[in-house]
Amino acid sequence: MTKCLAILAGQGDLPQMLAQNNPDALFVTFLGVDVSVPDGIKHYRASFEKLGQLFDVLKQSGVTDLVFAGAMARPALDPAKFDAKMITLAPRLMEIMARGDDALFRGIAEIFEAEGFSIKAAHAIQPDLLLPAGNHFGPEPSSLDQIDQARALEVLAALSPLDISQAVVVAGGQVLGIETIQGTDAMLNYVATTPQHLLRKKAIMLKGPKKGQDIRFDVPTIGKDTVYAAAAAGLAGIYILAGWVNVLHRDQVELAIKETGLFLRAL
Amino acid sequence: MTKCLAILAGQGDLPQMLAQNNPDALFVTFLGVDVSVPDGIKHYRASFEKLGQLFDVLKQSGVTDLVFAGAMARPALDPAKFDAKMITLAPRLMEIMARGDDALFRGIAEIFEAEGFSIKAAHAIQPDLLLPAGNHFGPEPSSLDQIDQARALEVLAALSPLDISQAVVVAGGQVLGIETIQGTDAMLNYVATTPQHLLRKKAIMLKGPKKGQDIRFDVPTIGKDTVYAAAAAGLAGIYILAGWVNVLHRDQVELAIKETGLFLRAL
Repeated sequence: MTKCLAILAGQGDLPQMLAQNNPDALFVTFLGVDVSVPDGIKHYRASFEKLGQLFDVLKQSGVTDLVFAGAMARPALDPAKFDAKMITLAPRLMEIMARGDDALFRGIAEIFEAEGFSIKAAHAIQPDLLLPAGNHFGPEPSSLDQIDQARALEVLAALSPLDISQAVVVAGGQVLGIETIQGTDAMLNYVATTPQHLLRKKAIMLKGPKKGQDIRFDVPTIGKDTVYAAAAAGLAGIYILAGWVNVLHRDQVELAIKETGLFLRAL
Repeated sequence: MTKCLAILAGQGDLPQMLAQNNPDALFVTFLGVDVSVPDGIKHYRASFEKLGQLFDVLKQSGVTDLVFAGAMARPALDPAKFDAKMITLAPRLMEIMARGDDALFRGIAEIFEAEGFSIKAAHAIQPDLLLPAGNHFGPEPSSLDQIDQARALEVLAALSPLDISQAVVVAGGQVLGIETIQGTDAMLNYVATTPQHLLRKKAIMLKGPKKGQDIRFDVPTIGKDTVYAAAAAGLAGIYILAGWVNVLHRDQVELAIKETGLFLRAL
């Protein structure tokens, strides 16, 4: 199974974790995306402009399954460098790159699937990424935290059809942060600057997917750094939607929860 | 008409402007809210804990109309200082203070109206606060700016039923900022920190009311500082919903638009 897997690696810890647990996989990085390559793994450095070459290499290596892992910003493409395959794909790619993340990912999945590859979610390769519902680290949330959680869920649900936002911060019914394209950590840094007089209680963060989100791409993810950033922002705890949020290095996350005194609950 | 007006003043330029144009009004400030009192105006310093006293003073001064102007954070109330009237109002106030801004303002309006006062919108006192639809300062928005404006309007509309957010920033279809309780300037400061690689084009901000918002309170407001903050955040321009956004010191705003090269359009 792992013999026919390729990890298309973006930034962050997830591709590294997957490589560690799938040492026979082909590790694919892209020119212009700074990703460190784990020792002792087969590596191919691809170019966004030459997807035809990438398809060939994957097929020649016997790859059947692909996992997209880690963050990858929309690349600037240089049409002068396109290979023949890429020239045929370019109109479709231009069209989908102008859309929201979901449409983009779905379009890219279709392009790879049309080449005969099967796209897997990271948690299909490594099931312990997901924290089952009811799992809980740290102290119990208060009843007011639970009310804030319900409010955060309302906000996430309202924005979900617009393909925006995987995280919301609420304190005492007041919304303190709504994740935009800059990501969860940037939002938590913003929340950290909230003037004291606007805070009625400690805040909670809810993190979950966008409605109808293709769970094979851009899966909401938390790690120990998320916990520390949440603590620095003065939060009481973090809720995640079970089955929809990757928890990287669960042992480290649990340790961070112990250190910071926050709670983490999978709903 | 102005003889029977009281300005219940919060922070910012609006109460000062209203006082300047209504020198016969009674200028009411509240203990714990730092507001400078314009020279030569009748002034009463009220206490949130003694609304009964405030009602008496207003009635004795012949006040019939009230305008709430400027920002006022939810005060911390000390029940030990409540006057008799306030004791009877307290249960209702406690209930509405736990809600969203709209519910709070509506509740406060009802309390003042029950005392026989008529609550006016600031722009009912000073109609030139509103910029009519079609008014435009600065360069023309591009067609891509117009697309971003439509996207921003979608986001505002989605959050509106939840009583959240009066402003949204969009660039190239990507949402860069959604106003939360910290206000527009804080959001613009956040947008200013967006990494360059996430920007496909210069952003636009749309500012407008929440759906069903009581326009007598918490009216979305822009002034020259908003323009400068938007310029510092790298924006191309600002859209406002005409008839729903107060523009403070229009001449200063127009000058700021000229200086920064942004556009301002009332939709």
